[in-house]
Formats: sequence, C-alpha cells, structure tokens
Amino acid sequence: MADSLPKKFCDAPATLVNDSIDGLVKSSGGTLKRIDGYDRAIRVVVRADYEENVKNANRVALVTGGGSGHEPAHAGFLGQGMLTAAVCGDVFASPTVDAVLAAIKTVTGPAGCLLIIKNYTGDRLNFGLAAEKARSLYGLKVSAVVAADDTALPDAAHPRGTAGTVFVHRFAGKLAEEGKSLEEILERTAAYERGIVSVGASLTTCSLPGVAKDTRLDGAEYELGLGIHGEPGAAKLPLEPATAVLDRMVAVLVAGAAARNLALPSTEFTLLVNNLGGVPPIEMTFLSG
Amino acid sequence: MADSLPKKFCDAPATLVNDSIDGLVKSSGGTLKRIDGYDRAIRVVVRADYEENVKNANRVALVTGGGSGHEPAHAGFLGQGMLTAAVCGDVFASPTVDAVLAAIKTVTGPAGCLLIIKNYTGDRLNFGLAAEKARSLYGLKVSAVVAADDTALPDAAHPRGTAGTVFVHRFAGKLAEEGKSLEEILERTAAYERGIVSVGASLTTCSLPGVAKDTRLDGAEYELGLGIHGEPGAAKLPLEPATAVLDRMVAVLVAGAAARNLALPSTEFTLLVNNLGGVPPIEMTFLSG
Repeated sequence: MADSLPKKFCDAPATLVNDSIDGLVKSSGGTLKRIDGYDRAIRVVVRADYEENVKNANRVALVTGGGSGHEPAHAGFLGQGMLTAAVCGDVFASPTVDAVLAAIKTVTGPAGCLLIIKNYTGDRLNFGLAAEKARSLYGLKVSAVVAADDTALPDAAHPRGTAGTVFVHRFAGKLAEEGKSLEEILERTAAYERGIVSVGASLTTCSLPGVAKDTRLDGAEYELGLGIHGEPGAAKLPLEPATAVLDRMVAVLVAGAAARNLALPSTEFTLLVNNLGGVPPIEMTFLSG
Repeated sequence: MADSLPKKFCDAPATLVNDSIDGLVKSSGGTLKRIDGYDRAIRVVVRADYEENVKNANRVALVTGGGSGHEPAHAGFLGQGMLTAAVCGDVFASPTVDAVLAAIKTVTGPAGCLLIIKNYTGDRLNFGLAAEKARSLYGLKVSAVVAADDTALPDAAHPRGTAGTVFVHRFAGKLAEEGKSLEEILERTAAYERGIVSVGASLTTCSLPGVAKDTRLDGAEYELGLGIHGEPGAAKLPLEPATAVLDRMVAVLVAGAAARNLALPSTEFTLLVNNLGGVPPIEMTFLSG
C-alpha cells in the first residue's frame, strides 16, 4: 500500500474527500451532520439544526456546493446566518444531480430554497437540472444565483466564481436568517453579487491527490489570475516584490470594477485577502496590511 | 533585484518580518499596535488597550515572544483574555534582551508581569536576562513560566515548547483578565503547563526566506516529532496512511503523559490539532476528526 501513497496526510486518495467530510462533521461539536442514510457517493453536509431553524421556521434554505479540494468551501460555511447545506463533489469535480437534489429535498420547506452556484459549466448544469427536478417532481420553490466574481480574464464569456462567493454566502445567509422571502433574497443577492470583483495570484500550481503535479510554475515565475483549481490565469510573470504583485492585482480589480460600472475605489468597499491554501501566515499577514 | 527574490510573497527576505508585523497591525482594526517610537530592530506588538485594561487596571501583564516564522505565534495571540505583548525576533531567532525589556517596561504596571517563555536556549537566556534587568533597574515585579510541552524526544534534557504553548497563553490570560495576582497566576499556570503534552509530524521540512531548502524529507518519508523550526524529530519513517501516523502520534502522547504522571486518556482532556503551516484544509479536516 505504501507504494501508492501520495505525499499527503490521507489514508488513500480515493477516500480523502469522504474522510475529510467525516472529520469535519465529527469535529463540529454537533453543529453539522451528513444527511442520514446517505449513500457514500452523495456527500451532503447540513446544519444540524436545519429542521427547527430553517425548514420548519419558514426560512429560505441556502444550498451550495461544487468540487472538493478547496476547503473550507463549501461545508465550512454552514451555520446560522450562513448556508444550510453544502453538496461536495469529488476533487475539483461537480457533484451529481442526484446529490444536489438530495440536498434540496432535505432542507427545503415552504419558504423555498436558493441555490448559490459558482460559475463553472458542470456546476451550472448539475445544479440547474437538480433545481428543475425539485420544482417539477416535488413542487419545491427553488431559485438560483450564480457567483461570477473573477475579473482576471476580462474577455471570459463565463467569469469564474472564486473567493468572492463567500460574500454571497454571507449576504444571502443574513437575509435568510432575517426571514426574508425567496424573491427578495434572490433579487438583492443577485444585485449584490454584481458588486464583487476578485483576482488571484499564485507562486505555484496546486497538487492533486494521486495526480502528477503541474510544473508550469516551478521556475522563478508567478501567475496572475490563476483560478482556484490551478487553471491557467491571465499571465505568467517573472517573480517580483509582493508590493508590485499587489499593484498588479489591484489594477485588475479596478479594471474589472470599471467593466461592471462599479465606482471602485471611490466608494466604501470590503476587502477579503484569501489564501488559496499554500501561503504561510507570515506572508499572508504582510499581504493583508 | 528579481534575481535574489525567493519564491515567496515578500518584498525582500530581510524586510519580511517587519513587513508582516506592520501588516498584522494595519489589518487588526485598531486592536493592536507596535510600541510607539520603536526602533525597527525592536519588534514589540501590544494590545492597543494595554494602558487602560492592563497596566492601569491592576491586571498582570503577559509578555511572550520568540523567533518569527511560525505565525500566528506570537503576535496573533494578543487581546482580551490573552497576551498583552509579543516580542518578535528574526526568523527562528530569539528576540534581543533589549527588545524583551522594552516590552516589559511598556506594559507592566503595579500588578507585575508574567513572561511565558518557550523552552529554547536563546529564549530562556534573553527573556531571563530581560526579567533580571526589569527587576533590578526598574523595580518591576516580573516572573516567568516556561512552556516545555513537546514529548517527541523523551530523553531530551530540555523539552521544546511547541503548540501546547497556546493553552498556556489562554490559561494565564484568563486568570490575568480576572485580576488574579502574579503569584497565583504563576503557580496555577506552571501547574497547568505540566499537564500539556504535544507531538508533531511532518511530510516535509520548512523553507526559510533566503535559505536553501532542507531536502532530508523529499523522499517517500515523513518525520515523527519534527520541531516547529524544522529541527529533526524522533524518527524518519516511510509514508503510511494518516490513520497509522495518528496512531503513532497518540502513542507518543500517551507515553509522554505517563512520563509526566498524567492520567491520559482516562481523564477529560482538550485536543488541539494544529497545522505547522503547509497542510491543506482537506487533510487537516480529516486529521481533526
């Protein structure tokens, strides 16, 4: 067995996603659970209190999800004022329609359900089909908002949903907690989402359990606009001081904001400095200042 | 300049520690500050409210510190019910006597000051000398507790202070917040510290800004008992499933607890699963369960 083990803390690459979800639930102090009687291929994590505080409390349920491998998205964002259920696919692969449908059916009460979908083809397709089935087969009220905050690739027909999606979770989560209607949450959240711009930068690509590492950034280079799955960004550049990297990132955000007719930076804004996973705290703290 | 840049998000290795501290203070929302008029070589971060809520409130000040490079230790642990001041040395190097003394002088009022020292030679020496000077030159009440929680090397004459030190910060911080006397905090915290056992494991060593990476763990191996500075541990072992790694770590903890006459695991205990910095969330979440 040792021959095939990756250089990772896991029992086996094939079980890591399920093992990690089980670890999250076990260490949540009872605040999270997986759907009872779930199939191991249907990986849905829910707020443990969803019945009393969402489904039977006339509150809109918020369901999100996507591939695994970029934790704490998405099961790490469940709870009061946040998400009701997260559907976890394989590493960097969309969850199945059945899995999304299982989540919707479990947590949706009379107030309905809002899906928060990151703008990737697989996610749009599978969440969209699940919403259709939930409506037509089970008569549930289901709407969807798509997060497409990435501005790294200005000509992209479908901007990616990246770290800014967390703001969408929180914004919709607060409205749902306050008991707002599905229609109001959908309208206000969709408008709010259009005010978010994001850009990434990375010194290396990511490594996947059981997959040979992409070495395209192994030289004295970094990539501007790299996506959360290690997908290519806008430009590969020679290493430069972090202050210069930040200047470039801010320029992309400002251009992205202008393209969306936002008044950045003359209005108030909230800044999230997010770690794609491999940057040490000493560097993140510097960047955050 | 680009020639000498490491593959890190920094402006230059030589300025990273100061830049990171400045970033922490800037992003703290006003809860932290550096000592006014500080020399750039004296890196002391304090709770911004230390005068009204510690020094002039008859509360014991808590001062800790050590090398930089293993953030959030130590400046990340300042605040109400936690530490009053953190003295930050260079990467993996103890802060100077002058820096520790500056911290003690700044935050210590009539109730006195407790130093929390991780058990490394340089830290014991420099914090100890600073305590002597604070007493003899300035008449301040200063005591010290040494954190030596590491049990990876059972025959070590001086067990290292590692992640368990966070519990010491919090325990002493709560007593100080409650207005307990220096004598009581010292006695109770020292007793509490003897109840903490820690062990580390790592798949790779750490990389230092501007220093060639140690490659001793580049093969299909991991190290049990590796220290927080990448110093060698108890054993280099072939890769194995994470569950087996955890079993070995628990065995070390149980043996370490027995050596300290603790009744683990038959009594209640608190478990901290700590990331040395490079383990992705998906793996940490699995390990935490």
